[in-house]
Amino acid sequence: MPRQVDHDARRQEVSLIAAKLIAQVGVERVTVRELARAAGYSTAIVSHYFADKRQLLLFTYQAAAQSAQERVDAVLGRSPDDLEGCLTALLPLDEERRREWQVWFAFWGMAIGDAEFAAEQRRRMAGSRRMLVRVLRAMSASGKLPPNGDFDPDLAARQFLTLINGLAVQVGFDPDDWPAERQMLMLKRTIAQTLSTP
Amino acid sequence: MPRQVDHDARRQEVSLIAAKLIAQVGVERVTVRELARAAGYSTAIVSHYFADKRQLLLFTYQAAAQSAQERVDAVLGRSPDDLEGCLTALLPLDEERRREWQVWFAFWGMAIGDAEFAAEQRRRMAGSRRMLVRVLRAMSASGKLPPNGDFDPDLAARQFLTLINGLAVQVGFDPDDWPAERQMLMLKRTIAQTLSTP
Repeated sequence: MPRQVDHDARRQEVSLIAAKLIAQVGVERVTVRELARAAGYSTAIVSHYFADKRQLLLFTYQAAAQSAQERVDAVLGRSPDDLEGCLTALLPLDEERRREWQVWFAFWGMAIGDAEFAAEQRRRMAGSRRMLVRVLRAMSASGKLPPNGDFDPDLAARQFLTLINGLAVQVGFDPDDWPAERQMLMLKRTIAQTLSTP
Repeated sequence: MPRQVDHDARRQEVSLIAAKLIAQVGVERVTVRELARAAGYSTAIVSHYFADKRQLLLFTYQAAAQSAQERVDAVLGRSPDDLEGCLTALLPLDEERRREWQVWFAFWGMAIGDAEFAAEQRRRMAGSRRMLVRVLRAMSASGKLPPNGDFDPDLAARQFLTLINGLAVQVGFDPDDWPAERQMLMLKRTIAQTLSTP
């Protein structure tokens, strides 16, 4: 493998193991040493990829966000106006996605009192909002939005982000109370309500 | 002051200082020693109130939840069917309430991989849902709900909790983008939508 590819692939691999470790034992107890043991590498090798725990968590967060983004891109690549599909891709419907959200919760916890982490979170949220506004404009162009002269795509996008984040927090700590059907019921309900409100 | 009152009051005082410290420097960097310095007590005294950092964070979380509960109780004491009032009491509309939410984010971060913290969060969420169902039943009794035979108070309560948590996450990391008026606009909009959906 070329050097750079090897480097990137290994960082990716280590960050996946970090995500699993965070979900199991919590972010406080994840150390570079602990991670090296779980990954089967020496501490020196892991330290070569991540200077410290902060950098490790930032990378793990970005990797989780990237994987969510790829699911959304796959949906929108097929149909750019598939609002329900792209919101569904973000919900914690299975274990892999619940783990992504757990990485985000850990990151939010660390972003309190950390200006750089908070800025990263802000950028991600603004990016998701722009993506949703694009989907809503595509729906409007393809005649999928009910006729509604005063419809405000920015406000609607904010409602959808509120839905996704608010649901994820509830599901995250009580998955048994939130089977996939209940999450989807809430999603469909909110989409219908939001699209029909001026 | 009687001994017990003194003990409780001092724990309360120390937990308020802990909440401010978490908001400033983040939960990772809050230690019993750091907290003692900020509070002007010796490490030994603070250790007397909180055995370790986990206990400190649990107490600080419970104190923040308690203070939110008191605001809600004050609203419902005046009128048991004031849904907008009780949801407003939970929104991060001012600095004190934003700090409460920051304590909760820090707690969520620590609750990943911590079964006891996760159970506490689950209990709080279920308690808030029961409270909202009571308010919705009171609205129904006082004729404040639009006639709607199929209205499901549990589902509506879930929508309101989704709103509050989802808004708080967005406001928490981008308060400038979420002035009080925008939060209230979103709240009123969601209340109107939710109460008019079967």
